[in-house]
Amino acid sequence: MAIDKKQVSSWFEQLQNEICTKLERLDGQAAFGTDRWRREAGGGGITRVIESGALIEKGGVNFSEVHGKVPENMLKTLEIEQDSDQDSTFFATGVSIVLHPINPMMPIIHMNVRYLEVHGKEMNLANWFGGGIDLSPHYIFKEDAQMFHQKLKDACDKHDSSYYAAFKKWADDYFFVKHRKETRGVGGIFFDRLSETTDSSIESIFDFVKEVGNSFYPTYEQLANKRRNEDYTDNELGWQALRRGRYTEFNLIYDRGTKFGLETGGRVESILMSLPPHSKWTYNHAPPAGSPEENTLRQLRKDVDWISPD
Amino acid sequence: MAIDKKQVSSWFEQLQNEICTKLERLDGQAAFGTDRWRREAGGGGITRVIESGALIEKGGVNFSEVHGKVPENMLKTLEIEQDSDQDSTFFATGVSIVLHPINPMMPIIHMNVRYLEVHGKEMNLANWFGGGIDLSPHYIFKEDAQMFHQKLKDACDKHDSSYYAAFKKWADDYFFVKHRKETRGVGGIFFDRLSETTDSSIESIFDFVKEVGNSFYPTYEQLANKRRNEDYTDNELGWQALRRGRYTEFNLIYDRGTKFGLETGGRVESILMSLPPHSKWTYNHAPPAGSPEENTLRQLRKDVDWISPD
Repeated sequence: MAIDKKQVSSWFEQLQNEICTKLERLDGQAAFGTDRWRREAGGGGITRVIESGALIEKGGVNFSEVHGKVPENMLKTLEIEQDSDQDSTFFATGVSIVLHPINPMMPIIHMNVRYLEVHGKEMNLANWFGGGIDLSPHYIFKEDAQMFHQKLKDACDKHDSSYYAAFKKWADDYFFVKHRKETRGVGGIFFDRLSETTDSSIESIFDFVKEVGNSFYPTYEQLANKRRNEDYTDNELGWQALRRGRYTEFNLIYDRGTKFGLETGGRVESILMSLPPHSKWTYNHAPPAGSPEENTLRQLRKDVDWISPD
Repeated sequence: MAIDKKQVSSWFEQLQNEICTKLERLDGQAAFGTDRWRREAGGGGITRVIESGALIEKGGVNFSEVHGKVPENMLKTLEIEQDSDQDSTFFATGVSIVLHPINPMMPIIHMNVRYLEVHGKEMNLANWFGGGIDLSPHYIFKEDAQMFHQKLKDACDKHDSSYYAAFKKWADDYFFVKHRKETRGVGGIFFDRLSETTDSSIESIFDFVKEVGNSFYPTYEQLANKRRNEDYTDNELGWQALRRGRYTEFNLIYDRGTKFGLETGGRVESILMSLPPHSKWTYNHAPPAGSPEENTLRQLRKDVDWISPD
């Protein structure tokens, strides 16, 4: 079965709208700016950024829908087999969110949902969904990580009982800062190239992606309301800035979306909205033994069962 | 003619020492820490970092001398032809410096000098020198850029009248933040793989590399003494933080030494000492027309003749 790509992009655009409206209300102080941009070769996007809020120090909620002839090397990058890129066209749409909170007791959150179609001269070469939600706390609170993962598992379980375990592992592997040998945060779910199979239609996958998109706001609201009024010290703000530095390292060195966007001439300011308002690097910083900071560092590893901690 | 590799590394280590001593005196407040590290597979290094000085906010002067069996893919990365890495050994030594000043009217400076030898089972596969010095001002002052480039040209001209033009262009091309379409700063000189030719012996190339190494401190001292006591505003500190963000983007996305070091399991904290003490990202920041900040941005381009401005 086919899916109407315009229906997908419309749904994504509406998701962007809804999330921005709700986040503004949650923030209570700042409003999202709106930058509409066009891609010369086809399509464009809407970049919405919020800065200096009461809750969010810097955050972006981006929508894009780009299409046209496939850019050079795109098929190769996507590992799609085809003799040449000529005559191939693509359509890609998605929503990406990164929110950097003021309060260091609150986590950085990231969400992405995306859809891609590639057409060769005579055939459909690919169409698939990808996405995920993951959390990068400056300070790890086990009960928050547990709640977060439980919400993701609930969303997954409604659609396929194998999804959560598979996509949780995928997030652990993807959001890994190799040179630091630490995960970016407590993970979440990450999935890519979900296509129609004999077991699931493309419509049912779209339903799952909608579930992920819709679960973003209520999950974030719960985390925000729990932590936004906690006290914090200058020392804790310093730690937040160091953790933001690690976030910067991941996004600039490893993140595939960032790399792909910058290499294919995407809109730089929309791509790099994910970077923190500021980051800090202190040579050889090591938190004192037994401190909450050291406790957080020790938990930044793969394969932690956040839902049923031992 | 061969060169004594131990003589090269001894000279580099002594250069590190001298520069640190002089920089401490220039700073007048902070001292360099000393971290000696060993590489499991052979060799090691001395990382010297200064923080919270009167002049330097964060800076590193690193020496390393590593050797052993060539790491996997090293020959491929270096584009050295050989059937396999087996039985090949290497020796690499160098000094790397990055200094981030407190005063935004002062530039970030970077210097590197390095030497590499690769030996196959029966033959010498490669031995060459590389290096350079470049300047990334937060605010461009033409007379400073002119003085800086003149000093580099003088150093080059003593050895080969073709060096400055060739290595200045190399720096323009190398220190380029592609996605921003801007140079990292006002450039300088950059060179790599300088090997013995019929015209120049490896000893004469080593002499040139010594000249570059020795020219670093007096050049920096002159820039520092000229600008270190200039007044600056909070607004100018904010601009400095944004420019440091661009420096971070270059180093994490494009810098070959950083990439090579992180991929081959180098000491992370020594490699990333180049990152600023802190960086800032403001969405879509654009300085006002006619401001010194805009004036600086407009000059961040390749092929500027800094010595004889029009």
